[in-house]
Amino acid sequence: MKRVGFIGLGVMGMPMATNILKAGYPLTVWNRTREKMRGLVSMGAVAGESPKDVAEKSDVVITMVADSPDVEQVILGSQGVIEGAHPGLIVVDMSTISPRVTIRIAKELEKKGVKMLDAPVSGGDVGATQGTLSIMVGGPEDAFKECLPIFQVLGKRITYMGSSGSGQITKLCNQVICALNIQAVCEGLMLAAKAGLDLQKMLNVVTGGAASSWMLSNLAPKMIKRDFEPGFKISHQLKDLHHALSLAEDLKIPLPGTALVSQLFRIVEALGMGDRGTSAAIVGMERISGFEIKASEGA
Amino acid sequence: MKRVGFIGLGVMGMPMATNILKAGYPLTVWNRTREKMRGLVSMGAVAGESPKDVAEKSDVVITMVADSPDVEQVILGSQGVIEGAHPGLIVVDMSTISPRVTIRIAKELEKKGVKMLDAPVSGGDVGATQGTLSIMVGGPEDAFKECLPIFQVLGKRITYMGSSGSGQITKLCNQVICALNIQAVCEGLMLAAKAGLDLQKMLNVVTGGAASSWMLSNLAPKMIKRDFEPGFKISHQLKDLHHALSLAEDLKIPLPGTALVSQLFRIVEALGMGDRGTSAAIVGMERISGFEIKASEGA
Repeated sequence: MKRVGFIGLGVMGMPMATNILKAGYPLTVWNRTREKMRGLVSMGAVAGESPKDVAEKSDVVITMVADSPDVEQVILGSQGVIEGAHPGLIVVDMSTISPRVTIRIAKELEKKGVKMLDAPVSGGDVGATQGTLSIMVGGPEDAFKECLPIFQVLGKRITYMGSSGSGQITKLCNQVICALNIQAVCEGLMLAAKAGLDLQKMLNVVTGGAASSWMLSNLAPKMIKRDFEPGFKISHQLKDLHHALSLAEDLKIPLPGTALVSQLFRIVEALGMGDRGTSAAIVGMERISGFEIKASEGA
Repeated sequence: MKRVGFIGLGVMGMPMATNILKAGYPLTVWNRTREKMRGLVSMGAVAGESPKDVAEKSDVVITMVADSPDVEQVILGSQGVIEGAHPGLIVVDMSTISPRVTIRIAKELEKKGVKMLDAPVSGGDVGATQGTLSIMVGGPEDAFKECLPIFQVLGKRITYMGSSGSGQITKLCNQVICALNIQAVCEGLMLAAKAGLDLQKMLNVVTGGAASSWMLSNLAPKMIKRDFEPGFKISHQLKDLHHALSLAEDLKIPLPGTALVSQLFRIVEALGMGDRGTSAAIVGMERISGFEIKASEGA
């Protein structure tokens, strides 16, 4: 059984590392805030001294941190994973970061004989806890096959997408679609509310048909109840849209809807609500419209 | 059993009128192009001489025509329904038109003692044929209750939304959400294709999760196959977005996403593809991006 290292014990990383440990893998962990390692250590994990130390003690090192600079730091930085490189080591970055940065890190690791997979996930903290994440993987296919049993502990829908970066690109396509679907819900609700429709009745009508979406079913009721608990944070959605728009810029294609929605979500962040869930997107629309939707307007 | 009149035997109206006739209602029909009445007459319907004549021979007159001016013409115009007004007559407009025009027509009819319902539908020609349309109804509630047995012949999800115009407004909210969900699919596909992802693999990954929508499941495969058969025509989607944006203008609220998508769909119309299905939205994005998506790019 492969020795696994896990770096980054946040909202996502903690339950993922826990599932790996429970599945019986020898586990070494590392987190910038060291107290977060205690729970896993009490369950049998080893606390690494540094990402380098984790790499030296592992066959597969998984990173699950916030963004591109964090991944660069723990892999290529001082006392980073790369300093603990040894033959056969595979690095699996499951954060959602820039595909360009992913490819660059993979190339650096390759020089040391280390293979890297980009394997971002969707499904949120619930999926992380239940081991039902969707995992989209880019990088060398032989490394993917070696890591597949570990992925199967973490998720359900596991797809090999192709060369390095293609996992990240797939995730960004997912986020582009999500963002526009969120805006669709916002604009439908704003129009209905200002026109005086009963919002719940309107949702009942449109949810069954061609307007249906996961966002409509899941976020619209939260928007009406003004439940802005994450879920997925506005600031993380903005980070992902930033990467999607940067990729589109590299590719020289316009994504006008994504660009607009990104700016509208930026309003929510400017209002100090970046840490709220994506249901808070409605607040930006309310602010630029000068009124708030209400649970029962009555027709 | 109520005597029904049906005005407008197009792609939607023909199967709807047929279902009413099959359900045993005495039916009088009228269509601008008179030949279209033949089939229904051979099944037992009466061919009306004019909308006025249809109204004189009916308890409930249903209109299913293209847009606001057509509804105004057949109801308020010369030889229109209003000229055949009689006590107890109910007019049901099932076209998707301007809520403002709906309310105005309803007021004119009210002066003659005629009640009007606005009852636009979703579900397309398939729903019309199978009698599974969604019907969203505005107008006097007693008239709605009187007409409910007829609606139950035509559709499955029938919702009374409130006062005159609220059926139309609900439909416009539906169309706003649909339009942004279509754009979401376009931008996800454009990014994936230009980045060299396998489009089918990408769709398989994102269709199961938070990005899922009716449009993703139904239109994305058509876009990849370049199947632009309607379905629902770009020109009709544009008409509905025009009404939604006009309503938002009356209400003095911004719908920035809807406005943008409307302009992008306008590109498809400008390319001479207004009569193609909404899957042709991808063609506008391709035109402004200078490349076409392909079935299998391979990663």
